[in-house]
Amino acid sequence: MKTYTAHIAVTLRRAILDVQGKAVEHALHSLHMPGLTNVRIGKHIELHVQASDQESASAMIREACDKLLTNPVMEDYTFTLHEGEAA
Amino acid sequence: MKTYTAHIAVTLRRAILDVQGKAVEHALHSLHMPGLTNVRIGKHIELHVQASDQESASAMIREACDKLLTNPVMEDYTFTLHEGEAA
Repeated sequence: MKTYTAHIAVTLRRAILDVQGKAVEHALHSLHMPGLTNVRIGKHIELHVQASDQESASAMIREACDKLLTNPVMEDYTFTLHEGEAA
Repeated sequence: MKTYTAHIAVTLRRAILDVQGKAVEHALHSLHMPGLTNVRIGKHIELHVQASDQESASAMIREACDKLLTNPVMEDYTFTLHEGEAA
């Protein structure tokens, strides 16, 4: 068994209005940072995976995302996986 | 002016107990996924930056993180920056 570290980014689908992102964008502009636009806010999930190889680690991450971590109707996810426990 | 896309990951500092992460980890184990551990949950922020070059784009992201997007006492952030509007 090896340990892998996964970083998962969960984002709202493009077609869905991100009101939290809009609020943050408005706040950035109020703070005189007009160059920052199209803010979208999602979740970042970091976890350790105990698996025999990278492929089965990926499969476990996908299962966790599909079953629990994301709402497949409204959200997309991407993840990166690397061996070891470092961040 | 060029457009850059930034992906920012905001995470709770290691020393701080992540109760949301603990709850998710417990739920994963209840769903028969014991191989997933050390879950930590943070924010993922995606935005476009209008800047003359990569260096000033980075500086704008750091300013936004320090002033608004993160709580420097409790949170750390990392970001990646690439040219263009693609995700």
